[in-house]
Amino acid sequence: MPQTPHYKLTYFNIYGLAEPIRLIFAQADVKYEDERLDDAAWQKRKQLTPNGQLPLLEVDGKVLPQSKAISTYLAKQFGLNGQDDWEAAQIQAAIAGLDDVKTQARTYREENIPKKAELFQKLEHDVLLPYLNRLEKALAENGTGYFVGSHVTQADLHLFDYLKRFNDSGLISPALKKMPNLAKFIDTIGNLPKIKEWIEHRPKTH
Amino acid sequence: MPQTPHYKLTYFNIYGLAEPIRLIFAQADVKYEDERLDDAAWQKRKQLTPNGQLPLLEVDGKVLPQSKAISTYLAKQFGLNGQDDWEAAQIQAAIAGLDDVKTQARTYREENIPKKAELFQKLEHDVLLPYLNRLEKALAENGTGYFVGSHVTQADLHLFDYLKRFNDSGLISPALKKMPNLAKFIDTIGNLPKIKEWIEHRPKTH
Ligand SMILES: N[C@@H](CCC(=O)N[C@@H](CS)C(=O)NCC(=O)O)C(=O)O
Ligand SMILES: N[C@@H](CCC(=O)N[C@@H](CS)C(=O)NCC(=O)O)C(=O)O
Repeated sequence: MPQTPHYKLTYFNIYGLAEPIRLIFAQADVKYEDERLDDAAWQKRKQLTPNGQLPLLEVDGKVLPQSKAISTYLAKQFGLNGQDDWEAAQIQAAIAGLDDVKTQARTYREENIPKKAELFQKLEHDVLLPYLNRLEKALAENGTGYFVGSHVTQADLHLFDYLKRFNDSGLISPALKKMPNLAKFIDTIGNLPKIKEWIEHRPKTH
Repeated sequence: MPQTPHYKLTYFNIYGLAEPIRLIFAQADVKYEDERLDDAAWQKRKQLTPNGQLPLLEVDGKVLPQSKAISTYLAKQFGLNGQDDWEAAQIQAAIAGLDDVKTQARTYREENIPKKAELFQKLEHDVLLPYLNRLEKALAENGTGYFVGSHVTQADLHLFDYLKRFNDSGLISPALKKMPNLAKFIDTIGNLPKIKEWIEHRPKTH
């Protein structure tokens, strides 16, 4: 039987692009080095990386950049990427759809507080609520409690990561009251024993 | 032997997000319906799509959104996604890196012509040249003429699509003179018989 390789995930000490990957390691119950660089350490390291950005995964010393490539590679190794190519495709599409929403949400960033509230309302109305409604419908149609197929996959972990932090912030809780499948999904994934344990013990950052 | 499924790719009558997918069909020499909607047809269809956007792939009537999910699904079916999971991961990372550059290039969009020239210089210096240099180095290190492994993959087709149109526009030709591997790559992929044939006969759009 092949030995588990030495995995090292390098990122900053924030959730950001790495947290879905950390959730994958948690759910798979696989050991890894969870390296978190501060700015000074990053400025020294940046030149040595393939594209000057984090996260990076090392697998027995071989380096892989790009958060979604890392996530998919690990999910495949750990049985969290669906049962066949079609499920893998739906998983990739679900994660890309979430990324589109994150990108749109970034364009609403605003420092000015009254303006921020106004922009958030517009974002909520034009982007977030339609998106949450689509997710609610997708869960209802799939009928298994997961987004793709009948087992937990990396798509669930990416979506959970985003929805849970959103929900904890209180911003979407009123909307979620009318979305029973989505509310149940967040609860189910958050109570998977390994996920629950990780969330309780993970470094508390932003 | 299983029959080839009926593939239908729906997009607008432009290159955009669909052209790398069309190159995959071309290289694999697989028949598909190349559906191109005008605005009026799209406004009628939009409501019926999973996320209100194109491209969409139909495989025997089952629908898949998201250009990169479509591309990877097809590349897998047609042997254009690498020889193992590690190659597949590098391919996904290469395509994600290209997407990052495309996103940065979009932030430089500007209608005002003198301003446009200035912005293009900044984009070239800060983003494009460092990126092209990284690609040149990646090709030199891999040493096979392709970006990942020793066969053509969807990564090559995505990169070719972008680099070739850039090159045809004349914008990067001076830079490419100092990048022999990259110049040779564009030439090699463009002369693959099926790719050459598609480019000669494809609808000429933008
Ligand atoms: N598309 C890349 C984006 C990576 C990225 O934007 N990384 C940022 C942090 S979230 C970074 O490394 N910033 C520091 C820098 O550019 O020096 C991915 O998904 O991994
Ligand atoms: N992340 C998506 C983006 C899709 C997208 O932005 N599609 C645009 C065209 S490039 C679209 O459908 N626009 C028309 C509309 O939104 O009504 C993908 O990669 O497929």
